Amino acid sequence: MLNRRSLLSLPLALAFTPSFAQPRRIGRLVIIGGAEDKLKDRVILQRFVALCGGVGSRIRVLSAASSDPASAWATYQSVFAELGVADCQPIAIPDREAAESSAVTDLILQADGIFISGGDQRRLMDLIWETEAFRALHAAFHLRGCCVGGTSAGAAVLSRNMLVQGEATIRPEKEVAELDIGLGFVAGAIVDQHFSERGRLGRLLSALAQRPQMLGVGVDEDTALVIERGQGIEVIGQGAVTIVDGRSMLSNHDSIDERERLELLAVRLHVLPAGHRYSLKPKVSQDRAIPAALLEAIGLLVAPGPIRG
Amino acid sequence: MLNRRSLLSLPLALAFTPSFAQPRRIGRLVIIGGAEDKLKDRVILQRFVALCGGVGSRIRVLSAASSDPASAWATYQSVFAELGVADCQPIAIPDREAAESSAVTDLILQADGIFISGGDQRRLMDLIWETEAFRALHAAFHLRGCCVGGTSAGAAVLSRNMLVQGEATIRPEKEVAELDIGLGFVAGAIVDQHFSERGRLGRLLSALAQRPQMLGVGVDEDTALVIERGQGIEVIGQGAVTIVDGRSMLSNHDSIDERERLELLAVRLHVLPAGHRYSLKPKVSQDRAIPAALLEAIGLLVAPGPIRG
Repeated sequence: MLNRRSLLSLPLALAFTPSFAQPRRIGRLVIIGGAEDKLKDRVILQRFVALCGGVGSRIRVLSAASSDPASAWATYQSVFAELGVADCQPIAIPDREAAESSAVTDLILQADGIFISGGDQRRLMDLIWETEAFRALHAAFHLRGCCVGGTSAGAAVLSRNMLVQGEATIRPEKEVAELDIGLGFVAGAIVDQHFSERGRLGRLLSALAQRPQMLGVGVDEDTALVIERGQGIEVIGQGAVTIVDGRSMLSNHDSIDERERLELLAVRLHVLPAGHRYSLKPKVSQDRAIPAALLEAIGLLVAPGPIRG
Repeated sequence: MLNRRSLLSLPLALAFTPSFAQPRRIGRLVIIGGAEDKLKDRVILQRFVALCGGVGSRIRVLSAASSDPASAWATYQSVFAELGVADCQPIAIPDREAAESSAVTDLILQADGIFISGGDQRRLMDLIWETEAFRALHAAFHLRGCCVGGTSAGAAVLSRNMLVQGEATIRPEKEVAELDIGLGFVAGAIVDQHFSERGRLGRLLSALAQRPQMLGVGVDEDTALVIERGQGIEVIGQGAVTIVDGRSMLSNHDSIDERERLELLAVRLHVLPAGHRYSLKPKVSQDRAIPAALLEAIGLLVAPGPIRG
């Protein structure tokens, strides 16, 4: 249920301290399906660092989704150090009071990259919803073009309509996918993670039945969907990203009760494997055709959500 | 691989003994995803018996796909007896010699219903391919309108392009789905079973990439797809039937090697839950719209394959 109130606009200038201003960049999202390689090639985390601006960039790690934030921070501190990042700091948010502190918002607003660890997406949202930290995250992504990466729960939380932790369902059911409000950087899609590995198509389709105007995006483990705002998307890592598009779907969702069985007709499905890039405006010279249905879906993915400032 | 040679036509009259002739009926298939209820309501097996003509009909059980055909026969003998069927007999095919015998073809050609048990679909095909029993099965279904039911391997074998036993793959891959020729009663679709329970979407999409002109049909456990030739389809039991339709799909299957990753764009997906019926020619009075894409798919499903006589 979307049980959080809409944020009333707080003048952005309050959250967006001019001293941190930088030339505007394209906001990028690195949406990781969990279990990304941290030991070997580290393709995804390397790319995240590159998209932040390289090893000289300021990377901040938000591990508040984890039940053990210190340990999650230590893991990424070590990985980013091994990748050569000199300036990597934790954004510690043990409670909502911290989420209102200028220490936290300063860390967020100075970041070139923010990495959100796994855990429980709801734990993170409960800590930051409607706080200064939340507004600072929006200012950082939307105005400063900070690169935001998230893995597992940290990927799910990037959606506006956020899937919460819960049991997988083997097939679509009416009330099985619980949705809440997430950070909202992906406004037009519901992101699920550990997708193929945990057989989550049923759950994603269940969510789609509730929000047929959205896309469902399932990201496999050790795989990331990179979204470049206004430009295109790319899949990197080892697996695939599955997009289910229910915008032309016929569903009985609104006419059945929760014990009745869900019917979903004419869903579109795309399997985008790692190594492929899809531009919103493909060059005429490209020999590769992208179906109109996928181009539309990409358009939805690269559109930024509203700023909550 | 489709490694079996096309059958040359043997005059049907040889296989189709007039003494067994009956008024022509609509051939029906009851394609069960395995693990159908045999103890409680037995919705699916009850329906199978009804479609054969009721408890007075002659039901024959083909259990040669099983590694223990006698035990499989005993199971269904007992269930069909409990359901009130008086004339239920096994079609014992221990070897290919038996599959050429008139004892076996007589049993097949006199049947009102033939039930094919689980096991290994390839074991069954190895025993009957190009035999008199195979031709008799075609004559029974296509000419006599015998109802044919199959569960698990017995469902997979109903396809012309038959998925063989094999490991599930969590996501679509180029060479992961092994196909062989099956009985061919479902000519336009590849049938998979235990579908949602074993997370077989990846495998079915892999098969679809090899045969993009086919539909992929995934049947859940304790669920059956009933196909009425030329008329329509119905889903019964507890779960759902998932149809993936790749006929408008763009895929890189033919341009990659087997280590490269499969891309599948613009696949259509339908989730048809138990309790729903879909007619090829929906009545104008029905308030329920069936999308054109699904109607086309139903058209493919209800079209009979070629007779191998």
